[in-house]
Amino acid sequence: MAHEQYQQLIHTLHECMSHCNHCYDACLKEDDIKMMAGCIRLDRECADICAYLEQAITRGTPFVAELAAACATICEACGNECKKHDHDHCQKCAEACFNCAEACKSIA
Amino acid sequence: MAHEQYQQLIHTLHECMSHCNHCYDACLKEDDIKMMAGCIRLDRECADICAYLEQAITRGTPFVAELAAACATICEACGNECKKHDHDHCQKCAEACFNCAEACKSIA
Amino acid sequence: MAHEQYQQLIHTLHECMSHCNHCYDACLKEDDIKMMAGCIRLDRECADICAYLEQAITRGTPFVAELAAACATICEACGNECKKHDHDHCQKCAEACFNCAEACKSIA
Amino acid sequence: MAHEQYQQLIHTLHECMSHCNHCYDACLKEDDIKMMAGCIRLDRECADICAYLEQAITRGTPFVAELAAACATICEACGNECKKHDHDHCQKCAEACFNCAEACKSIA
Repeated sequence: MAHEQYQQLIHTLHECMSHCNHCYDACLKEDDIKMMAGCIRLDRECADICAYLEQAITRGTPFVAELAAACATICEACGNECKKHDHDHCQKCAEACFNCAEACKSIA
Repeated sequence: MAHEQYQQLIHTLHECMSHCNHCYDACLKEDDIKMMAGCIRLDRECADICAYLEQAITRGTPFVAELAAACATICEACGNECKKHDHDHCQKCAEACFNCAEACKSIA
Repeated sequence: MAHEQYQQLIHTLHECMSHCNHCYDACLKEDDIKMMAGCIRLDRECADICAYLEQAITRGTPFVAELAAACATICEACGNECKKHDHDHCQKCAEACFNCAEACKSIA
Repeated sequence: MAHEQYQQLIHTLHECMSHCNHCYDACLKEDDIKMMAGCIRLDRECADICAYLEQAITRGTPFVAELAAACATICEACGNECKKHDHDHCQKCAEACFNCAEACKSIA
């Protein structure tokens, strides 16, 4: 497949999307949801761009670099917000975001 | 995670999206592209709805059944078109589509 | 264009997507965000499916009916949640959702 | 609404998405489809990123600049491909793509 060279990146993007969406879902159920508003917002932004890039790579998009540059910035912003919160889902999400930001930067 | 019960479905949707997008990419490079127009079109439709449903499940959507019903119909249509063509990417795509249609029907 | 017969539906979907995303954004800034969690969640679901269907129609998808059926259910659920809240953005969003649900039902 | 300042950009993105998807649909029906393969591929890339950015703006994304930078590059590439072809849908699509590339560049 044309996207075989990107298998690791696709996996990393998928993990990040999944963690962001889980964190989003969990934040919406937290009692201290007021504190989590930034997290909810950035989780959506990050999940959406990771899902987008993942799909774009599998269809052989010629724009991996441009999309990965935007994705890296968004992953980093989401990771920085999530790491402020002690919830397990936030900490795990932050880790997935920083991994994904690194992977995207190396391609952008 | 809230979406753990759907891990197998997420995997099946991801495989189907990936095969559809690979088939789309490969069809666009075929010499007999005129014959592949229906395949190209349905590959996009199918990849997009599979990617959509996959993401929706990871964020805990309350609408898995409704989305899976639409997805099953689209996967089946794409599989039926792909199986007509001898290209390896079409045959593999058809198989992934039929698997995914079954998985979606059992949930819809 | 192939999608000219659907111009009114495209407009209605676009309005609904826009109101849902505005309501989502505004809910995340409300003081009583704890009460708005269901609204935030459904706004995202509804904006995403409306945006999806709108795009699918413009590319001549053969699956308007199937997608519109899912979209109608999601719009109705989002409208029912939004109408419970007195915020202006919620009331306007509910109205856009019910309009869109009707339009989708007439096509599904 | 938070996205009122971007009303013109939203309209431009929507026009571009709509023209790209119409061009994609029309290219798939052309007799000389072999020549249109690049157009079909780029129409999808361009429609998808325009639809993505349009939605992201309506939800108040903090990443308009990053996404607009990627979108500008993709719109320009699609416009350059479309303008090579005499089909009316290609010429109109090229115009919409260049308009959108300009609008995105002024924001990126």
